[in-house]
Parts: sequence; structure tokens; C-alpha cells
Amino acid sequence: MSESSKFDQINPPYRLLMGPGPINADPRVLRAMSSQLLGQYDPVMTNYMNQVMELYRALFRTKNHWTLLVDGTSRSGIEAVLVSAIRPGDKVLVPVFGRFGHLLCEIARRCRAEVHTIEVPWGQVFSADQIEDAIKKVRPRLLLTVQGDTSTTMLQPLAELGDICRRHGVLFYTDATASLGGNALATDAWGLDAVSAGLQKCLAGPSGSAPITLSPQFVEVVRRRQCVEQGIRTADHVDGDDEMIYSNYFDLGMIMDYWGPERLNHHTEATSMLFAARECARVILEEGLECSVARHQLHGAAMLAGIQGLGLEVFGDQSHRMNNVLGVIIPPGVQGEQVRQMLLNDFAIEIGTSFGPLQGKIWRIGTMGYNARKDCVLQTLAALEAVLNRLGFASRQGEALQAAWNVYTAGSC
Amino acid sequence: MSESSKFDQINPPYRLLMGPGPINADPRVLRAMSSQLLGQYDPVMTNYMNQVMELYRALFRTKNHWTLLVDGTSRSGIEAVLVSAIRPGDKVLVPVFGRFGHLLCEIARRCRAEVHTIEVPWGQVFSADQIEDAIKKVRPRLLLTVQGDTSTTMLQPLAELGDICRRHGVLFYTDATASLGGNALATDAWGLDAVSAGLQKCLAGPSGSAPITLSPQFVEVVRRRQCVEQGIRTADHVDGDDEMIYSNYFDLGMIMDYWGPERLNHHTEATSMLFAARECARVILEEGLECSVARHQLHGAAMLAGIQGLGLEVFGDQSHRMNNVLGVIIPPGVQGEQVRQMLLNDFAIEIGTSFGPLQGKIWRIGTMGYNARKDCVLQTLAALEAVLNRLGFASRQGEALQAAWNVYTAGSC
Repeated sequence: MSESSKFDQINPPYRLLMGPGPINADPRVLRAMSSQLLGQYDPVMTNYMNQVMELYRALFRTKNHWTLLVDGTSRSGIEAVLVSAIRPGDKVLVPVFGRFGHLLCEIARRCRAEVHTIEVPWGQVFSADQIEDAIKKVRPRLLLTVQGDTSTTMLQPLAELGDICRRHGVLFYTDATASLGGNALATDAWGLDAVSAGLQKCLAGPSGSAPITLSPQFVEVVRRRQCVEQGIRTADHVDGDDEMIYSNYFDLGMIMDYWGPERLNHHTEATSMLFAARECARVILEEGLECSVARHQLHGAAMLAGIQGLGLEVFGDQSHRMNNVLGVIIPPGVQGEQVRQMLLNDFAIEIGTSFGPLQGKIWRIGTMGYNARKDCVLQTLAALEAVLNRLGFASRQGEALQAAWNVYTAGSC
Repeated sequence: MSESSKFDQINPPYRLLMGPGPINADPRVLRAMSSQLLGQYDPVMTNYMNQVMELYRALFRTKNHWTLLVDGTSRSGIEAVLVSAIRPGDKVLVPVFGRFGHLLCEIARRCRAEVHTIEVPWGQVFSADQIEDAIKKVRPRLLLTVQGDTSTTMLQPLAELGDICRRHGVLFYTDATASLGGNALATDAWGLDAVSAGLQKCLAGPSGSAPITLSPQFVEVVRRRQCVEQGIRTADHVDGDDEMIYSNYFDLGMIMDYWGPERLNHHTEATSMLFAARECARVILEEGLECSVARHQLHGAAMLAGIQGLGLEVFGDQSHRMNNVLGVIIPPGVQGEQVRQMLLNDFAIEIGTSFGPLQGKIWRIGTMGYNARKDCVLQTLAALEAVLNRLGFASRQGEALQAAWNVYTAGSC
């Protein structure tokens, strides 16, 4: 048929992806995905599922039994957590410091929550006191936070929030999609009740699988809303006494029953994405989680030094920046999109644009996952300097690269 | 770390998957998935997305512009269609002839629909008259059907239902997850308003991506419920005048805006799964869609002849059987699970069990996608005969294989 011959086999051109994600996948992860499939109840397959649970417990730094994958992009993990916990009318508090805070509001609104927000200007984060004050005022059932918001490159400190939530009887969730593996996160030590993530940032995989972890307390909330499907229920199945969850696909009770010993059919596990998720975790844990975070810190610092060496300004409160993404203010007289086009067309390097209040004002440059490497940082800086020079922006020739190099001579990972 | 060294690289043992799906993926699809990633707004990537739309229009036999992927398993495609169309209190009619009819009820219930069902015993399908009578009585807003229900192996005829729905002002949806590519389906000619599918059955790919197609009439329904996210909306965005969609991830309006020329960010497209979906479509369209259906018909017929040659009975109304899966009645005195275990452990062949009213009563044997091949059929029959003989079930030695062979000598594809 003409439809097929017209379209050649997949053969993406070479790209160095240095934006806010997705970034280049680790070749090990791509190879894992090319493995042949297994039946969903094959003992080898269910064993792989159990291994994934164990591997992600280590990544999330938790003892939570219920640590598993939601089959969809990172956003699917967020929605699964929110729709499984939020009953219509429940009050939620969202500290908004960027686009992904708005997203949590948006999803919570779709769950018919009563959504309360506090906001800081883009480029800042919240103090624990600001959040506790709002909790006292709002009395929410859930606190919904974003750990790293790539839209602003800021990292919200979470370590003190768990105690606050516990004191006020609030469930504590964070979206760690953009931060996990590249910034410290300690689910149990920080008292988090639910964390969701994705593979396409610091974990060096493709978008399409959302690892999540749930505390026993969170699981209780979900279990009280338990339903079992007509087509597969038996006399032994008892529904919970709380309001049902208004989604089947995202019903974490059903997803737990599928991942648990009963292996009660829900969806058909996305096998290739599970293979990817497993390999992402193996790559990080072989390196060591702390070393992976330190590596992101190092290459983020080198990129920062290089950008400043170029004579460019960076965006936001640098004491609360994510290790893995840097906001760079587009200098006066330079057209941001033209620079991105030249980088992509002439160097095959992609850096990020931005949106909302920052649209046209900053570039976002990532150093994460497989691309948190010295060669990626130095190549990007060299290319950016050349492009800016070409467009008439005078840098002190050579200083950017030397500054980045100096960071590497000082630290190492 | 111990967590990683403990778990070796992915290396699934060889399996011939002859159950109701997932089945072995076509190696071309696995290779496509191992391609390196691209940025989500890279022109090469958005061009791949446009190609996927065009390829699936051919597979669904439709001119519908809005033909795209939902990022999740086939169940995610179902929920996206249902939650985007159903407003709380809307009446829906579901003709239930197996487990996946119950699933449609279950998902519709989560959307707070008023769910009406008609039922036939497992192993049968509905006449068009039965469905029209129910439509007249219930006056639903949507008719929700399953084309091929693997739980019973039955294929519901759909060709006449579009006209009926049009006459009564009903939106017409079918779940073609298990049937697409192996059984005739004509979205436009049959007057379907929405169809969803999956890759892991006749399309020879992995679970994890759900192709869907939406008629202009269906799109209008969705557009009236349009919302644009806070974090990315501009003054130009106007919300619809109908009730909002109670999901963000499955909001087909937002998903269309992401796949459309505006490329408004929603999720980050699951790139590797998109590569898989694209290759699945290319494989089928290179063969020719009609030839793919004929191939499934041929190998299904050969399996049927072989099973009958073994002296086994088959399940359900054979004039309405899916081409790609056969229900085989477990003969008296034989333990179904023991046979499945021996096939898996000694021959590396997986056939399916069953659930609900058929649990313990039938096996389900698939001939679909990459495994709709002569060698798969003959190997499975030879192994099944040997296992049954081993367990004391006397077949007329050799007749099963000869009967299947005869089908191949008569027909070819």
C-alpha cells in the first residue's frame, strides 16, 4: 500500500538532547526494550515485575511495599495518585512555583477537589513556614507538591514538609518526574505518602512509564475505595466503604491487585516499557544513587560556570536550582529561537525554549541522565558560543570552556 | 549496590506465545523501539507523529483526521474515549457478551454514566435487531461495543449498527483491541464514531500504546468540553460550553491539541512506543490490510481443523468466531492447567487459560500478529497432541497435523 512504502523505517537523525527532557536514552535502555515479549503471567515476567518493585524502592529510598509502574507517561502517574486519593470536595493545597504546579491544580480540579493554592514568582521556591501557614489556614486533606519544576528550573525543598503534614493530618505527595535520580529524594525519611516519577529525565529512558511509590497510609486511603471489576470478581472480593475512584485505568487499588500476589488482571502490562524502567533503575543503582546525584550536581555546576563564562545571566534563585536543568537569560538583541534553530540545524544540539511568563525570555539547558556527561557539556558550550558569536554577541573567546573545565578539574565523579 | 547486581540484564527465555495476547512482537517492531529518542517538538518527531496519524487512518479504514495514539495500554484508549464523551448521568448501552463488555460497563460507571446492558450467554453474539430494540427502549447517548471479545473468542458483527445509531442519534463506539488487523473493520463504512485498539494482538507489537480514531461528530462532542491548562493557556484559548472532562490525561481535546498544528504541550509523547506503533502499521500495510485479515483467517482455520482433528471440541458460535483466537473445551479427565504447564515448561509454548464463567473449562489458543504463521500453528498442534497423549488422552495419532496441513494445501496467503 502507498501508505507504507511512502514511510521509510524509523531512522531518527543524530541529536544531542540538552533541553529539559526528554534526553537521549542510555543505549542499554534501548537494548533492553528490544527484548522479545513474555506472557503477562509467565513466571519470568511476574518475577521481572517484582524486581522492578524492588529496584524502585531503592531509587525512591523507601521501604514501601507498593512501589510499581503506572503504564503511561509521567503525567499518568500523577493522575493515578491524585484520582485514587481525592474524593470530590476534598480540599487540596498546591504550592505553585511553575507550570507543573498549575498542572497539579488542573488535575486536582478534574478530580473535583476544592483546590487551594499559594504562589511565589517564577524563579523562587517556598519556605517550610509558608507552606505550614497555608496548611493551617486551608486544612487540606492533601498537600500536592512538585519537587523539581523544569519550567522554572527550581527545586522545592521537601525535607521538612513531612513532619508538618503529619502534625496536621495531611497526606503528602510530590511529583519527582524531573528530579528523581539527579537530586536527593528520600521518600521515607521525608515522610512522603506518594511520589511519582518518569523515565525521560535523570533516569535516561524514554517517556511512557511512571514509577510511583505509596506509603501504607496512602494505600489505606486507596483500599477504602476498592472496587473489583464485574468480569473478574469472585465471591471473595469485598468493595471498600468509601466513595469509588472515578477512573478504572488509574484505580491504584486495581493496579496493586495486578502487581500483587493475586495478579488480578487489570491492564496488560506494557512489557517493553517495563523492560526499559528496569534497565533505567539498574543503570543508576550500579553507579550508585548518591553518585548519580553527585554526577548531576557536577555537570550542572560545570554548565553553570560555562554559561557565566560566556557572559550570560542565569535565571532564578541559584541556591534552589535543580542540578539537572539551568535557565539561561536570552541576552538583549539575540533572538532566542534563532539560536535554538542554529544549534539544532548546524550542531544537532537541542536546547529548550520556555513557556508561560518565561516564554521568549530564557533558554533551558539540561544536563541529565545519559547526557549528564563532560563531553555533552563541553560540546554544548562550544556550539552555543560559536552561534552567539555568529549572531554578533561578543563573548570573551574561550572563557566559557575554560570555566567549565575548571569545575571538572576541581571536582570529579 | 546489591539491588542492581542481584538482577541481571533483561534476557527473557524463548517463548512461543500462542495465547489470546500479548504474542511475540515482530522483530521489526522491537528494532524500531531500540531507535534513539528525539525532542518532542523536533520536526522529525512531529513528522513521525503525522505519519502515524496517516498510517492508522489506513488501518482503521477511515478519513477521520483525528486518528492518533493514547499513551498507555489498550485500556487507556477505551477510557480516553469514554471519559471524553460521557457526561455524568448520560445513558449508555452496552451489549455484553464477555469480559470486555463488563469492562466497558465498569469504565462507564466510573464516568458516572447511567449504564444499561443487554446480555447473551458467553459464546454468542447479538443480532442487529436485538441491539436496535434495546436502543429504542433505553434511548442512550452512546452505544459501547466490543468487536472481538477474547474472553469468549466471539466477534460481534458491527456493519449494520452504524445506520441504526444514526437513525436514533446515538454515538457508536467499538473496542477493536483484539480484532484490528486480523478481522475486517471499516470505521467509515460502518458509521463508527470512535474506535480504539492496542498493539499487542494482531498488530504484532507490545502493549503500551492505544491507537484511536474519532469521527468529526465525536470530535464536536469533545470540543464542547474543551479546557486549556492554566500553565500554558493564552488569551486566545476559549473553553467549551459543555461540562468539563473529568480527566486531564485522557482529555481528548488536549490530546488533539498536542497532535494538531498548535502542538500545545500535554504529555511528553512516549517516543519508543510511537516508534513501535508506526512500525506495527507499516508491517501490516506492506502486507496489505486485507491480506493480513486473510492470513489471520487462514491460520485460524488451520488451528480449528487441527484441534478438531485431535478430537477436541471448540467453544461458542463458530459462525461468529474471531479469526485470531479459538476457544478449546478442556476434555473430561484432563487438567487444563497441567497441560498449560507442560506446554510452557517442555515446549516453551504458552496457550491461554480463561476466566469468569469459562474458568477451568476452556483453553484459548491464539493465532495472531507475528504468530499467525504456519510453523506456529503446526508446532503448537504437535506439542499439544504430545502433551495430551502423555496425560492419557488418546488422539488419533497424526490426524491433527494432517487436518491443519490440508487447510494450508487448500488456501494460501
